[in-house]
Amino acid sequence: MVRMAGATPVFVPLRSKPVDGRKWSSSDWTLDPQELASKFNSKTKAIILNTPHNPLGKVYTREELQVIADLCIKYDTLCISDEVYEWLVYAGNKHLKIATFPGMWERTITIGSAGKTFSVTGWKLGWSIGPDHLIKHLQTVQQNTVYTCATPLQEALAHAFWIDIKRMDDPECYFNSLPKELELKRDRMVHLLESIGLKPIVPDGGYFIIADVSLMDADLSDMENNNEPYDYKFVKWMTKNKKLSAIPVSAFCNSETKLQFEKFVRFCFIKKDSTLDAAEEIFKAWSRQKS
Amino acid sequence: MVRMAGATPVFVPLRSKPVDGRKWSSSDWTLDPQELASKFNSKTKAIILNTPHNPLGKVYTREELQVIADLCIKYDTLCISDEVYEWLVYAGNKHLKIATFPGMWERTITIGSAGKTFSVTGWKLGWSIGPDHLIKHLQTVQQNTVYTCATPLQEALAHAFWIDIKRMDDPECYFNSLPKELELKRDRMVHLLESIGLKPIVPDGGYFIIADVSLMDADLSDMENNNEPYDYKFVKWMTKNKKLSAIPVSAFCNSETKLQFEKFVRFCFIKKDSTLDAAEEIFKAWSRQKS
Repeated sequence: MVRMAGATPVFVPLRSKPVDGRKWSSSDWTLDPQELASKFNSKTKAIILNTPHNPLGKVYTREELQVIADLCIKYDTLCISDEVYEWLVYAGNKHLKIATFPGMWERTITIGSAGKTFSVTGWKLGWSIGPDHLIKHLQTVQQNTVYTCATPLQEALAHAFWIDIKRMDDPECYFNSLPKELELKRDRMVHLLESIGLKPIVPDGGYFIIADVSLMDADLSDMENNNEPYDYKFVKWMTKNKKLSAIPVSAFCNSETKLQFEKFVRFCFIKKDSTLDAAEEIFKAWSRQKS
Repeated sequence: MVRMAGATPVFVPLRSKPVDGRKWSSSDWTLDPQELASKFNSKTKAIILNTPHNPLGKVYTREELQVIADLCIKYDTLCISDEVYEWLVYAGNKHLKIATFPGMWERTITIGSAGKTFSVTGWKLGWSIGPDHLIKHLQTVQQNTVYTCATPLQEALAHAFWIDIKRMDDPECYFNSLPKELELKRDRMVHLLESIGLKPIVPDGGYFIIADVSLMDADLSDMENNNEPYDYKFVKWMTKNKKLSAIPVSAFCNSETKLQFEKFVRFCFIKKDSTLDAAEEIFKAWSRQKS
């Protein structure tokens, strides 16, 4: 999309600190402030930020966001902030909107999603929040492309917000109950992946968990004629042979960062307990078979 | 959109025969076969066809479509056929799909609309029908832009088709009942516009009717500082002063054909009878005021 708009995308990877035995957390992955600053110059039109991060689950801290905000202001750069997992943040973490940082409102477009907020991803509804002088251009695009989103679903979404916004302190409020429910599923998924010898990166937000699956020693020999990266081959093999599905993490990467992540796959834990039970059975049988 | 794709759009206007006193019909508007042929050459990638036509209501005949098909085959040109009003065709007319003409299936993409077929324009669902070698490219675009349409509405649409496809010969079938119902509304709208001195172009399909409104002698003097075409000024003035809304027809035109249509506006007659009653009252009061 950046290239189609005539611009040049510049990728800045998150990099992990060493973790020496303790649990690996999404917060161990950070942007190097020097590296990030080196990518900004007077031609930098915009930065695309994603917090909570898909697929890592990283929730950017105030200090990390301040580094980004300072660079945006220094170089007069727009910030497109994808915050679709804003309500899915686990204990000890807090989602912050970079648009609320001093000097950032007038240069930030914040993106939200009904699908992620109310677990209705098939509804295809979302929104952008920003100042008039930026949103008016998005309105022009909207008017001439999608024209409108499905009106009955927009009305249902408005009702859902209306209900939950009046009970923000109530544990029943979906913004509170969903992360509580998902945190248990996350912890279950962490234990499950650890029990079969993997070392998942424990996410602070979102509903995905990634792990280096090369440790599973899967026999991909029947995928030999497939020239795709390891993770693509692995998920195809696993879907077919283990009836378990995941997403290859290198799909999120550019050619430079692909190598760093091509052993990782992304599991999704926003699933019924019965589905997680079934996944556990599959993993355990797989583990027994290996040993 | 054509220009954004790097192509050069070529416009071929429909032209009207003289009608000398009798009712003006959308079928009086035709493509000049010589003019159309003169616009085709070896660089012609595609033609965009729309039948039944918005805003004219023209339903292309077999002979007219054969002229287009012959040119598409001769110049190896794709045909993008917008047939969203395919079920809204009035007595004496028949909608034909150009994709069914010999040699056309492999070069035609036929576009349909749930919004137009089942009167749910807010649902934003549609489809394209064509051969594998064309549709696969549309799938690539779909996967990387909208990704999916709203899934609950897709399911409802499938049910609606399932119900009506089993009763295609039943007058209750929506494909039969809707055009019957709309034909009465069309006729009412024709009489209404005629009763106030206009000469509407009676549509053979669709749910719009266009008329030269300069005959209304509206006093647009308070729109003087507005540099828009006459029809834009007229509909803004009418919406504000008469509480009646319409669409300027020159919005459908390129700069060359704008002059031909800038006195025309498009009225919509897929309205409750009570809404048409209210429109009638407004038109009659306006008419009395003039005389």
